[in-house]
Amino acid sequence: MNINIDNSKENDGPIKKADVLPASELRQDIVSGDWVVIATGRAKRPDEFANFQRTQDDKGIEGCLFEDPVASGQEKDVLIYHKADGDWTLRVFPNKYPAFSLGKSKHSLSEGPYTAMSGIGYHEIVVTRDHYRQLALMENMEIAEVFDAYQDRFLEHMKKKSVNYIAIFHNHGKEVGASIPHPHSQLMAIPVVAPYVKLELDGAQKYYKSNKECVYCTIVEYEREDKKRLVFENDQFIAFCPFASRVAFEVHVMPKFHSPYFERITDDQKVKLAEVFGKAMKAVYGALQDPPYNFYIHSAPCDGTDYPHFHWHIEILPHTATWAGFELDTGIEISTLQPEVAAEYLRKQL
Amino acid sequence: MNINIDNSKENDGPIKKADVLPASELRQDIVSGDWVVIATGRAKRPDEFANFQRTQDDKGIEGCLFEDPVASGQEKDVLIYHKADGDWTLRVFPNKYPAFSLGKSKHSLSEGPYTAMSGIGYHEIVVTRDHYRQLALMENMEIAEVFDAYQDRFLEHMKKKSVNYIAIFHNHGKEVGASIPHPHSQLMAIPVVAPYVKLELDGAQKYYKSNKECVYCTIVEYEREDKKRLVFENDQFIAFCPFASRVAFEVHVMPKFHSPYFERITDDQKVKLAEVFGKAMKAVYGALQDPPYNFYIHSAPCDGTDYPHFHWHIEILPHTATWAGFELDTGIEISTLQPEVAAEYLRKQL
Repeated sequence: MNINIDNSKENDGPIKKADVLPASELRQDIVSGDWVVIATGRAKRPDEFANFQRTQDDKGIEGCLFEDPVASGQEKDVLIYHKADGDWTLRVFPNKYPAFSLGKSKHSLSEGPYTAMSGIGYHEIVVTRDHYRQLALMENMEIAEVFDAYQDRFLEHMKKKSVNYIAIFHNHGKEVGASIPHPHSQLMAIPVVAPYVKLELDGAQKYYKSNKECVYCTIVEYEREDKKRLVFENDQFIAFCPFASRVAFEVHVMPKFHSPYFERITDDQKVKLAEVFGKAMKAVYGALQDPPYNFYIHSAPCDGTDYPHFHWHIEILPHTATWAGFELDTGIEISTLQPEVAAEYLRKQL
Repeated sequence: MNINIDNSKENDGPIKKADVLPASELRQDIVSGDWVVIATGRAKRPDEFANFQRTQDDKGIEGCLFEDPVASGQEKDVLIYHKADGDWTLRVFPNKYPAFSLGKSKHSLSEGPYTAMSGIGYHEIVVTRDHYRQLALMENMEIAEVFDAYQDRFLEHMKKKSVNYIAIFHNHGKEVGASIPHPHSQLMAIPVVAPYVKLELDGAQKYYKSNKECVYCTIVEYEREDKKRLVFENDQFIAFCPFASRVAFEVHVMPKFHSPYFERITDDQKVKLAEVFGKAMKAVYGALQDPPYNFYIHSAPCDGTDYPHFHWHIEILPHTATWAGFELDTGIEISTLQPEVAAEYLRKQL
């Protein structure tokens, strides 16, 4: 923990009431070493988080850019799945306004003491057919198809020389960055390893050195036995609220088997994942009554290095808090719901 | 930079147009090593960021909890400043709903493989007199008084045994976490070193080892000479848009003299700081037409260790972007305005 106690300092003042508990607890993320605050003194009941005022920004199918991507001038599909009767069920195409793209830099972008490089990479959109059916409302086989598309594109992009990390994420709701309401995920294949993933890689490596065990396998084993933060599990995957939750109702979905690499998932595992991920999404949807949310996959980088001690997983962050000055200042998130209470409430939705 | 080039991988596909520039550049934060994306392909004009729809949540002085803190049942002041004629100008009192407070923990909070501790600490509110006069609208001497109060409380809390880091921050606008519109800052004295500050401490230490120079002094020197990201300077302080800006119109305010410790600022320096900080706030207020914002002070921890290679500073983050799935996934922020363009526009406001 490395907490410094400086004995030259004075004692903290007297506590007014005997044995009063502090208003919060600090919990440490076992992988990254980061801290979160569970502000029990400001705690809300789990049913109080659903009163979120959604920005009503969906003008419906009319004019939706992703309802008929070809007609609305999106880029050409790089992947398309069809139903037996012929209509498409999922398609992937390059983002028209990419944050990363191919191109040649005519000159070095570094300047004075600073380092910069071209934003070379790939930025794609994964769209499912139905404007009104978000992931929480899908059948397991439809969800499995989404993971199948993620894997397909991941395998394609990881071959490329410029690509060292692949980010796959999903924004739902204008409040959390989804500018188009039609359900869609995004994939960005980029030249640098994501700093947050680097933190996890380093933490997992450090934990392995000390404990000769994968830190994520340790988490899986503990949460399965302990059960109080468990949301749902089958024989291959587990969904639980993490001990150091950054926001109320945060859920992590993790394979029970050790694997650093999402892209190596088998077809059978995709179906199992779809069941657990689907249950987690349905629980969050029910508990918070269709909240805005983000989720993303953390998989090992594809930079030519092996990461045997990493363990891929999905993090689901419902929009239940506004990160403000304290979070931006410190990197410590304050959450007003204990993950144990959140998990119990999520289980009731199933 | 540590970019892996795996030669077993295939080359990236052909670029359609010759010499086309990629849609963005990746810039590295020289201190933390983190990356940001300046998405030039999605760039907006600097005057396009002001069209922010503010949530009109201010019901005015009537019923404001901070207009007359004593009457509205706030905790007893720990510091109060008065004008010569007797009315108060600034007061500091403990937060009624603290995220950190004193108290005794009856049992260890750690559990299984996880580490936790009591949220012991102090959480105070710094309120200025006028409900409608935010920092951007204040005179320099009023701003200097705010820094004076920050310093006073910092010096008080840093003596306490349980306190290892002191966070001082300010939220303006409901969108960025200010639940009460009356201008106020917050101070949290906490037992752990903030992870984001730890990143900066480590980065500064590493830079010093390689370059025998403070990384922040290097930045100050470069930005003063280069001038294109400069917003304002006097003989003691400088305000500039950082090379690796995380959001459009981000501004850093830094002493030109080397000092790790904000709390050692002199009265003369406080007046000089107020001038530069005030100009930066006025420029942001003008450019974005009264935007929501957060700012915070990063000073060295008060954990009994010396941090000779750190350099305290203030970071101002106007609310010009929603961090979404990609940012949460990777820790890489996408900004749609070059800091060079932002700085030029900010200078025009002065």
